[in-house]
Amino acid sequence: MQLLQNRIAAEGKILGNGILKVDSLINHQVDPMLMDACGLEFAHIFKDSGASRILTAEISGIAPALMTGVHMKLPVVYARKTRPVTMPGTVYLTTAPSHTKGNMVDLIVSPEYLKPGETVLIIDDFLASGATILGLVRLAEAAGAKVVGVGALIEKTFEGGRSALESLNVPVETLVRITSMENNILHFG
Amino acid sequence: MQLLQNRIAAEGKILGNGILKVDSLINHQVDPMLMDACGLEFAHIFKDSGASRILTAEISGIAPALMTGVHMKLPVVYARKTRPVTMPGTVYLTTAPSHTKGNMVDLIVSPEYLKPGETVLIIDDFLASGATILGLVRLAEAAGAKVVGVGALIEKTFEGGRSALESLNVPVETLVRITSMENNILHFG
Repeated sequence: MQLLQNRIAAEGKILGNGILKVDSLINHQVDPMLMDACGLEFAHIFKDSGASRILTAEISGIAPALMTGVHMKLPVVYARKTRPVTMPGTVYLTTAPSHTKGNMVDLIVSPEYLKPGETVLIIDDFLASGATILGLVRLAEAAGAKVVGVGALIEKTFEGGRSALESLNVPVETLVRITSMENNILHFG
Repeated sequence: MQLLQNRIAAEGKILGNGILKVDSLINHQVDPMLMDACGLEFAHIFKDSGASRILTAEISGIAPALMTGVHMKLPVVYARKTRPVTMPGTVYLTTAPSHTKGNMVDLIVSPEYLKPGETVLIIDDFLASGATILGLVRLAEAAGAKVVGVGALIEKTFEGGRSALESLNVPVETLVRITSMENNILHFG
């Protein structure tokens, strides 16, 4: 998706340790028009996926998932990283390593909003190692739901996430692919 | 806004300690179409506010702020509660009591995305005591920006937030007003 790639090329900053800062677009400041365009693109890509629900992880997944939900007219559920007081006693919880934080984070979904038989489209901001997305897959499976597709705004192809997701046998679609950040230069694929 | 009020009446749950659970609409599951309608309503209400930017707080403020941003074509900034590695060394940070968590939380904004002279529309999910919104106001003031309006999806009128915001002398607009949750019954005003 050229629009997103151009913005990343112009505004993305490589911080070292494999971290790409896109805080002006997605992770702190959000450009709603750009997210709207990305949501429309995902809605087009996944129009025949049969998804009944979109699943993402707070915080950075919310914007792309919400805009995809608007265009697909599907409810969005975002996995919480801490358990709010409003959650019931029994929840689905899994743990995944955080790429930017360097520690493990919980991903928690209430059984109220993820039910057996649902067909789930996972949308997130990054596909890097795939660890967060695999965590969301485990939550869906724990609920008896079926993952029918995975979409991410930005794929870092050199971190192996795509092969980590291969065994799911579902479409994995990303809008921009970064093939290298070596020598502080972004290469797109 | 009747649409939102009807959904809260049907799906909201009073949990005690003044907590209203709207996890099926806003705080865990999000209904994108409902949020889109709320964003459109805020865009209408604040069309003459002169705002150059929308400010909210993660996590639950993101959905209504983003949809308002789509309709007003304005960038959205969400204050972070923990400082990500992508933030620069010097930031604006304030502390506010969390209503649902019962502790203090940090609200952090990078000076990259909140600059002197900006006109800020604050959008959040709840107006209760006003503590979070006043925290966002302090961040805007620290940045040399001017708050021109405050919008919240749901106001709990009995928690005094509106009078806490009075001295700002800006429009405070809420889409649904809850006047009492006594005896486990929601009363709308």
